[in-house]
Amino acid sequence: MATDDDRTVDELRAALDGPWREIREKAREHLDDDRLYGDPTLDMRAARARVLEQMRLVSTFGWAEKGFRLEHGGGNDPGGAVTALEMLAYTDLSLWVKCGVQWGLFGGAVENLGTERHQTYVEQLITLDLLGCFAMTETGHGSDVANLLTTATYDPATQEFVVHSPTPAARKDYIGGAAEHARMAAVFAQLITGGESRGVHCFLVPIRDDQGNDLPGVTTSDCGLKGGLPGVDNGRIMFDQVRIPRENLLNRYADVAPDGTYHSDIENPSRRFFTTLGTLVRGRVSVGGAAAAGARVALSIAVRYAERRRQFDDPDTGEETLLLDYRSHQRRLLPLVARSYALAFAQNDLVRRMHLVQTGQDVDPGAQRALEKRAAGLKVAQTRHATRAIQECREACGGAGYLTENRLVTLKADTDVFTTFEGDNVVLTQLVAKELLTAYSDEVRDLDALGWVRFAATMTRDVVRDVTGVRQLIQRLRDRSDQGVDDGDLARRDVQLQLFADREDYLTRTAAHRLRARAADTGPFEAFNNAQDHILAAGTAHIDRIVLEAFIEGIAAIEDEQARALADSVCDLFVYTVLEENQAWFIMHRFMSVERAKAVRRGVNELVDRLRPHATTLVGGLGVPEYMLRAAMLTDPAAVSN
Amino acid sequence: MATDDDRTVDELRAALDGPWREIREKAREHLDDDRLYGDPTLDMRAARARVLEQMRLVSTFGWAEKGFRLEHGGGNDPGGAVTALEMLAYTDLSLWVKCGVQWGLFGGAVENLGTERHQTYVEQLITLDLLGCFAMTETGHGSDVANLLTTATYDPATQEFVVHSPTPAARKDYIGGAAEHARMAAVFAQLITGGESRGVHCFLVPIRDDQGNDLPGVTTSDCGLKGGLPGVDNGRIMFDQVRIPRENLLNRYADVAPDGTYHSDIENPSRRFFTTLGTLVRGRVSVGGAAAAGARVALSIAVRYAERRRQFDDPDTGEETLLLDYRSHQRRLLPLVARSYALAFAQNDLVRRMHLVQTGQDVDPGAQRALEKRAAGLKVAQTRHATRAIQECREACGGAGYLTENRLVTLKADTDVFTTFEGDNVVLTQLVAKELLTAYSDEVRDLDALGWVRFAATMTRDVVRDVTGVRQLIQRLRDRSDQGVDDGDLARRDVQLQLFADREDYLTRTAAHRLRARAADTGPFEAFNNAQDHILAAGTAHIDRIVLEAFIEGIAAIEDEQARALADSVCDLFVYTVLEENQAWFIMHRFMSVERAKAVRRGVNELVDRLRPHATTLVGGLGVPEYMLRAAMLTDPAAVSN
Repeated sequence: MATDDDRTVDELRAALDGPWREIREKAREHLDDDRLYGDPTLDMRAARARVLEQMRLVSTFGWAEKGFRLEHGGGNDPGGAVTALEMLAYTDLSLWVKCGVQWGLFGGAVENLGTERHQTYVEQLITLDLLGCFAMTETGHGSDVANLLTTATYDPATQEFVVHSPTPAARKDYIGGAAEHARMAAVFAQLITGGESRGVHCFLVPIRDDQGNDLPGVTTSDCGLKGGLPGVDNGRIMFDQVRIPRENLLNRYADVAPDGTYHSDIENPSRRFFTTLGTLVRGRVSVGGAAAAGARVALSIAVRYAERRRQFDDPDTGEETLLLDYRSHQRRLLPLVARSYALAFAQNDLVRRMHLVQTGQDVDPGAQRALEKRAAGLKVAQTRHATRAIQECREACGGAGYLTENRLVTLKADTDVFTTFEGDNVVLTQLVAKELLTAYSDEVRDLDALGWVRFAATMTRDVVRDVTGVRQLIQRLRDRSDQGVDDGDLARRDVQLQLFADREDYLTRTAAHRLRARAADTGPFEAFNNAQDHILAAGTAHIDRIVLEAFIEGIAAIEDEQARALADSVCDLFVYTVLEENQAWFIMHRFMSVERAKAVRRGVNELVDRLRPHATTLVGGLGVPEYMLRAAMLTDPAAVSN
Repeated sequence: MATDDDRTVDELRAALDGPWREIREKAREHLDDDRLYGDPTLDMRAARARVLEQMRLVSTFGWAEKGFRLEHGGGNDPGGAVTALEMLAYTDLSLWVKCGVQWGLFGGAVENLGTERHQTYVEQLITLDLLGCFAMTETGHGSDVANLLTTATYDPATQEFVVHSPTPAARKDYIGGAAEHARMAAVFAQLITGGESRGVHCFLVPIRDDQGNDLPGVTTSDCGLKGGLPGVDNGRIMFDQVRIPRENLLNRYADVAPDGTYHSDIENPSRRFFTTLGTLVRGRVSVGGAAAAGARVALSIAVRYAERRRQFDDPDTGEETLLLDYRSHQRRLLPLVARSYALAFAQNDLVRRMHLVQTGQDVDPGAQRALEKRAAGLKVAQTRHATRAIQECREACGGAGYLTENRLVTLKADTDVFTTFEGDNVVLTQLVAKELLTAYSDEVRDLDALGWVRFAATMTRDVVRDVTGVRQLIQRLRDRSDQGVDDGDLARRDVQLQLFADREDYLTRTAAHRLRARAADTGPFEAFNNAQDHILAAGTAHIDRIVLEAFIEGIAAIEDEQARALADSVCDLFVYTVLEENQAWFIMHRFMSVERAKAVRRGVNELVDRLRPHATTLVGGLGVPEYMLRAAMLTDPAAVSN
């Protein structure tokens, strides 16, 4: 590979753009528009007003309706909708959140938890004639949604639900849209009828009149300034015996008859609750994607800066040295670029799976649950990556990185809450691990072969990318790895995959063993708590493995040889970085000899050396066009030191 | 240790308060004043104006003059000055920076680089009759100060220097005070006389008139919004042939005679340059201290929140579980608390050493250089810790942690640049390592015994704390460790110290070897660059070792048995955490068996278990009174989940 060229950039970008590549390309045209970027000089009120205006502009792009069902005037293309909106993360994360709340969370709740009688709301919310918010979290309960305190008590006399906040902790909190713009809230509350509590259900509650005043019994307030996302009007809501019609229950999974009789096709209350939550998986999928997009912007800025910024003379040449020619700088940035590649492929794969499930093309009974696990895991991986990568980019750009005009601090501030919202990362990692523990005895891995075949039959070739073939590739690699992994070449994909899988399997198996052994002695909580770090490690190992698999599959689909070779080296760097981060574990559990661990460390250095000349090509492949970067230091002649 | 009590808190706080404890206690009284806290709702202009007002208030506390020499109307108490101002980091880091620029950087430059003829400026800057700024960094050169581009060319005809920015990259940048308030700048520029460049010197250049307008030839501009520190008016300065009197050269180390003859007692230009920079060590000492103070505030908030916030039922009891009762939460926060203890002791030790050198009590010829190395290392350790710890605290407080009213995001944003300013952390770690490499052959460790004896003779007993005895303690531990470290108990301090020292020694020795071996083949830059990660690891290992030593010494000085026992466990947690973070290295280099590494991991869990009941006591000991915390969630009844 003598020279990189534009074609390699295009090929890499096409690969990372994934199944909804055309939508991304079209979005890049839409987003070449100053009106869609954030203005950090605005105060909170002005920033919120601007974002609302921006959302009205976005509503003309045809992205909003894409994700809704045909019968609601939508495009039945949830994958396309998530992908299109994700592109807003390149311009302004406040705008992305605002749109995500309106069409994803609020819209998703009404469409997926509601029935025909709520159809009119869907039509209105798509066009922004109805602005809504998603009122799940309370001040007292965020992660533990099952224990929400807000009540919705059915009154058969008037055929109404009475929505009420019985304690200060029952206050809805952090709700995007609740502070200013939302007219209606999708409120999660404990449904009570006939004196009996039926668990958490979702209700449509009007909260403001046309003039924006709180309706009777509703008290909204403002969360005020946050670490970032100034354009999102997060607020609080208290309900004082607010009456809503019986029909405002979103009644897809359960209903209350006029006389107060409760009925649900799902008899098990816990299953009903998780079915309800499961329909909201799109939010979690979206958050991971947007976080990763934010990291791509930051890495594009930091790498390009390191390609023009010089500091300290090279004593051999007397010339000042480019930042990116320093080993330490390469090691700071290039492994993060590699992880961005890995996660982009993993996210595309996730969106594809979500699309299949939500359009009814994947009807495998385990598909929804597998999707939820994967969405949780990739939400964790991508938001954690964003926090780490953007922070590293900020620091790698020195004082310039701290100036708002260079955008990195805004990206950091805006994405910071992504590790928390739509599921706290620790709680989600635990959820992933619990799924593993439950399933590990009859583990067949969630290959979902049936689903993939169906997928292949119904989608265009571009979307499919021989995915079934690729799945076979992973299986083939796994089969091969049975022979001689122990002393196998670390550069071999089968050996790499095996190491990742070994770590996951070992951690899961031993965690399960530990839980069983201890539970008898100490009670379940103590047993769980003593093993919590172990359990979390198992979850993380699983996430690493599925990301690697998606990366390998993504590379196999690249036809251009030069681009594929480069992506292969990037994959190696991702693998070596993960192995290096976990080398103590691998050595301590005899999966890696000390000599091999030393080879990993050398390998990282060799790989950053090898990739360094291609750094600009690689960030080009990340797919953030230069006109989107908007960092002053990338064009300021004063920033180059002479 | 059955119960913790207020006395234990007091004892720990006294220990962490260190030699200038009385100043800290007094400061806590001064800072119980709403006027001194940040107001995040203010816009940039208003925030700057407020901070200027706050600085005027602080100037009445007697802290400003404390650090200056007696003949300048000061208190000759640099340690006291650094300590007092550090306390401002508890209230508002913008205020701390603003004061640090005025009295520390600008004031320090005038006092330490100037002579009698500049005395009047010192008097004026103490009282704020003269507002100054410290104009070192340029857009093109930050870390590489020796290559600054601004010139100061002597004109014997008028006996003036002509200060000039020859290129856009020569623009002074990020300068605190330059955007609005400063009237005079301490400008670092290449001194040219008789057609010959003499290297970087410092000049006093008036930049604004009394009305705040730029003086002729001076063009200031505004850096605008930053990631944080909204109350600091960072700006840029361009000079267009600005003439200043010959006397405005700060001429302590070099002077230009009226006829243009250059003279310096320090003949070697490089030594002259480093002597000039060396006088500014106080800035670096201060930054580390303020960063650590910021981390203490964040940890105090996050731990107290985790002691009141509950989430998810304990299936054994049916009660909701306190966040801090979760193992993962303990592992997130308690090791950071332990590191805060370690760094507090190390910072006190550093300030003490600085005080001795700067008051002429430590005249050991190597003392200044040893001080610079230590200041660099602890600046890195403390700012890195602050970035990591505050981020972890933010995430550990979930959505509440993201609200400005809970202060964590402001602490994160404000301290974020600390890893960059006063020396980029990578560059400083390298500087530490280079010192190690230079010295390693005749390494006797910088015990500075002479200095300590002198110190003991001249300071009050409270300040001394039997430091010489403690130094002997470290030596004794080292001696003991010669026998049987290999299979020694990891809970033994001598074994712990030996492991830290082994890592440092091995990394330094092998880095030196590698540099020598490669330099012949590849030229010095390539040799350095190939080993850069190795070199940085050596620097980090050194920093860890000196922090541990300071921690051990600090504990030995605690008289109260209960407090000392608790601090001992905290020290163990610090040690085990560092060992765990580096366990791959220890195993791979045969300093630790796999079994021992597993014991380390178990040890961390055991220690967080043991310390958990004392968490409130421990954050009490960090010395941030509750009235300073000002996080709404610590008093909001809605935050506790019922």
